[in-house]
Amino acid sequence: MSAKYTIGLDYGTNSVRALIVNVANGAEIAAAVWTYAHGTQGVLLTRDPNQARQHPGDYVTGAEITIQQALAAAKKAVKGFRADQVVGIGVDTTGSTPLPVDASGQPLAFSKKFAKNDAAMAWLWKDHTGVAEAAEITALAQRIRPQYLAKCGGTYSSEWFFSKILHCRRVAPAVFAAAHSWIELSDFVPAELTGTLAPDKFTAGVCAAGHKAMWNAGWDGYPDAEFLSQLDPQLGALRSRLPARVRSVDQSVGGLTEAWARRTGLKAGIPVAVGAFDAHLGAVGSGVGPGTLVKIIGTSTCDIAISPNHQPLADVPGLCGIVDGSVLPGYFGLEAGQSAVGDIFNWWVNYIQPHGEKLSHKVLDEEAMKLRPGASGLLALDWNNGNRTILVDQRLTGLLIGQTLYTTPAEVYRALIEATAFGALTIINRFEEYGVKISQVVNCGGIAEKSAITMQIYADVTGRPMKVSRSAQTCALGSAVAAAVVAGAHPSFAVAQKKMTGLKPKVYRPNAKAHATYQELYALYKQLHDAFGTRDWNGNLYGVMKQLLEIRGRTRS
Amino acid sequence: MSAKYTIGLDYGTNSVRALIVNVANGAEIAAAVWTYAHGTQGVLLTRDPNQARQHPGDYVTGAEITIQQALAAAKKAVKGFRADQVVGIGVDTTGSTPLPVDASGQPLAFSKKFAKNDAAMAWLWKDHTGVAEAAEITALAQRIRPQYLAKCGGTYSSEWFFSKILHCRRVAPAVFAAAHSWIELSDFVPAELTGTLAPDKFTAGVCAAGHKAMWNAGWDGYPDAEFLSQLDPQLGALRSRLPARVRSVDQSVGGLTEAWARRTGLKAGIPVAVGAFDAHLGAVGSGVGPGTLVKIIGTSTCDIAISPNHQPLADVPGLCGIVDGSVLPGYFGLEAGQSAVGDIFNWWVNYIQPHGEKLSHKVLDEEAMKLRPGASGLLALDWNNGNRTILVDQRLTGLLIGQTLYTTPAEVYRALIEATAFGALTIINRFEEYGVKISQVVNCGGIAEKSAITMQIYADVTGRPMKVSRSAQTCALGSAVAAAVVAGAHPSFAVAQKKMTGLKPKVYRPNAKAHATYQELYALYKQLHDAFGTRDWNGNLYGVMKQLLEIRGRTRS
Repeated sequence: MSAKYTIGLDYGTNSVRALIVNVANGAEIAAAVWTYAHGTQGVLLTRDPNQARQHPGDYVTGAEITIQQALAAAKKAVKGFRADQVVGIGVDTTGSTPLPVDASGQPLAFSKKFAKNDAAMAWLWKDHTGVAEAAEITALAQRIRPQYLAKCGGTYSSEWFFSKILHCRRVAPAVFAAAHSWIELSDFVPAELTGTLAPDKFTAGVCAAGHKAMWNAGWDGYPDAEFLSQLDPQLGALRSRLPARVRSVDQSVGGLTEAWARRTGLKAGIPVAVGAFDAHLGAVGSGVGPGTLVKIIGTSTCDIAISPNHQPLADVPGLCGIVDGSVLPGYFGLEAGQSAVGDIFNWWVNYIQPHGEKLSHKVLDEEAMKLRPGASGLLALDWNNGNRTILVDQRLTGLLIGQTLYTTPAEVYRALIEATAFGALTIINRFEEYGVKISQVVNCGGIAEKSAITMQIYADVTGRPMKVSRSAQTCALGSAVAAAVVAGAHPSFAVAQKKMTGLKPKVYRPNAKAHATYQELYALYKQLHDAFGTRDWNGNLYGVMKQLLEIRGRTRS
Repeated sequence: MSAKYTIGLDYGTNSVRALIVNVANGAEIAAAVWTYAHGTQGVLLTRDPNQARQHPGDYVTGAEITIQQALAAAKKAVKGFRADQVVGIGVDTTGSTPLPVDASGQPLAFSKKFAKNDAAMAWLWKDHTGVAEAAEITALAQRIRPQYLAKCGGTYSSEWFFSKILHCRRVAPAVFAAAHSWIELSDFVPAELTGTLAPDKFTAGVCAAGHKAMWNAGWDGYPDAEFLSQLDPQLGALRSRLPARVRSVDQSVGGLTEAWARRTGLKAGIPVAVGAFDAHLGAVGSGVGPGTLVKIIGTSTCDIAISPNHQPLADVPGLCGIVDGSVLPGYFGLEAGQSAVGDIFNWWVNYIQPHGEKLSHKVLDEEAMKLRPGASGLLALDWNNGNRTILVDQRLTGLLIGQTLYTTPAEVYRALIEATAFGALTIINRFEEYGVKISQVVNCGGIAEKSAITMQIYADVTGRPMKVSRSAQTCALGSAVAAAVVAGAHPSFAVAQKKMTGLKPKVYRPNAKAHATYQELYALYKQLHDAFGTRDWNGNLYGVMKQLLEIRGRTRS
């Protein structure tokens, strides 16, 4: 019997990747990456730092090119490999990245009329033009539909579905009027590949709908028309045209079309799984299960845990979302995150230390590794890009305390790493405070792969072993796992994950002495966190600098 | 009638300067500088960062060399100049810089027995080895002699006279036992030049005694023997051997000896004024008078004001000292200061930006000058070296808030300058809160001379014009003014200052719009200042980051 493979298509912020995986053992036999032709600013090349748009044509082109190239690479890598051994496709993407579509389900951007209109493009996850609308939605929900907010951490974000659509209604009414509906990128790609874009055939994923569009089976799907109408009557009218069928990733949206079979060389009819966000399928590719927290650590983090949906689960304040089936069927998916991690380290190296050679990440890593916990007297807050979890507040900024006349760049660098570790611990604590026990932490993503010092500090700060996913491309791998399930290659996600995912042998174990010092430092971090980040804190910070000096004195002697 | 000149001898941390000044108009006709041969670590070259010692032999050598060289330079600069036109000498030095002397008044360091003993050297102002003893003195005074602390800001410093002597008693009992007495550098030099080192001839300056040794005419001079004995019986026994005669700088300690006349080429018998600290005579050289605050801004600042001694003056909490006659006779001298100013800028450039060429002070000055107040969203506390005034607390550290992922080095640099300006404003406010009206601010020192951006920011932050002293070496000039008074060349300091000192034509005037923004930022600075720096503050800092972002948004748009 010949080997079976699946393809994971992973749509990132700047590029798309196709990964071909052996379903029997998770071997990643070939991959291809293509950078979007139009970039992330839309077609008008605006310099508005809040705007981030993508041309949906790139998503289509990207699928074709990367699948072709990955298949070609597989033929070189594995003797006798044939494209018809690929039995299914899975798709993960950024999100919330909604795009307007016409009555036939085609992106408005593909029409001549809107080909040069940024509002008709896909509104990339990090587009923040809808800040005012997000505040409006949050305020209205607080007043009349508090249950909507309870499942998304208490605040509706400018990065999410309805903020963007409402903003479009306000600033580009012609585009809004021309749009029959709006769909997520993670749903567009599977529908495009399977010819199911038309509204009566279309399937949306519960991951995007639940986490970003307040979709919940408990209240009949999307927010009700009355609520949406109070934001704007036109938004209320849109509700009936939003996707009717919402499913989780164990379902197929359909079979690959003949046309796509010809374009790629794949076999027509192979199933394409319901799409989901990169982090969620990244968690699947890292082996997420009950008790396991998966941290996808790159420029920012996404932290994913799951909890059986047959057990009661409290609303966890400050989490980005709690959605039944958003990660795995049968489980609540819980999403948390840090707004910046690698981005903070990059800021220190590229903006504050712009001379590259002498103070690169590598040099700073090495110097920072030699420093003892507490020995610099520094403490930082990891809020240079706001705080996603647990404060859900973008209007927060960085803070560094403890500088002397002798503070070095490596000391600050280490303090910034520690700050992100304290932020990570705050998330773990929040999960556990609300009954989601975390018995194992698995890391993946660029920082987990490359920065040993970060992983060691995370272990020392949290007092937990830090494991690292075996795969360097867990999102695409997770999509391939979903594909294997929908293709019937494995009977369940549990089996598919067991066969196809794994951990690296190297585990970062906490050092007891370092952990003890970090517990003292974390108490101070939490004081600053609460003093600057919460309305209710009341106190005095007189002891903070003095305790940092005291710890410094003790660790240096 | 031929012109008259005086010499100002200015003993700094690293070098000594002799300045020859025309008493009629303040013209600085010649100067010479000599760097101490032994440096500032003592003779043993210890690397203890708390220790700073100087060999008193360098003070003697330095006087001889710089006077000789300055006279030679004067002969070249002014046609017909003769050394006998020099009618007096004034001396200013760092302090508190005490040194142990034998029964004849000679430094112990000059004896063979102690020539290699760091405890027998001069204990430079910045020597912090007596931290524990300073805390002990403060605690005892709080308990039994609170009046001693009221005149020195509430806390006795490790940098001061008795902390050092008591520490010597503890760590170098042989040196302590061999010392007949201890004298300040500012008193040693005048006594050495006039042959009045012997205890019965010796005159101490009220500046050093009053500001650093708790000397006050109101309680019979130095702290009483009972107080000192409780610290250590030997310290109590020392009291009777401390200098008996304490005077202000309008008095002469004696005439130049024949020996020193031969060594230098000066005329024997010319009067040498009572010595004082550099900042105090720097204030004189900057034209200090009632209502004028003189800021000597270098690595740190010393801020000097005076208040008529016939008017009641409250004890001003947090000031370094209030001493009758310490600056000018007939006035209380009030000393405040910032523990680091230029040192903080140097830290950012040299430690955090160690690549020199691209991000020098000059480049950062230019880039920071282009930024608008509030536009970076940053705010800093200027406590990298602790806070001298008004908190009197060395166990404080720096703080920076408002960083994003795009914060630039120039933005941080400007925030650090602004932080020192907020610190300066806090000092001015404290003076005025206690009835010392500041109607004019005159700056001098390296930063005032070189950094236009700093002066402009100080003007914008304080809302007051920043004037700069005409002389670039105001300390030495102030000493020359004192010399002119004791030589009878002018009838009073007021007349001598009017003739010999002045301001630069360039005045930095506050920009109303910038000042308005800085008033908002100062309110936030004061919140952080009180939250981290005082025991009594109670509150919440939730608004700080948000207000910084709000101000940023407003100033950028």
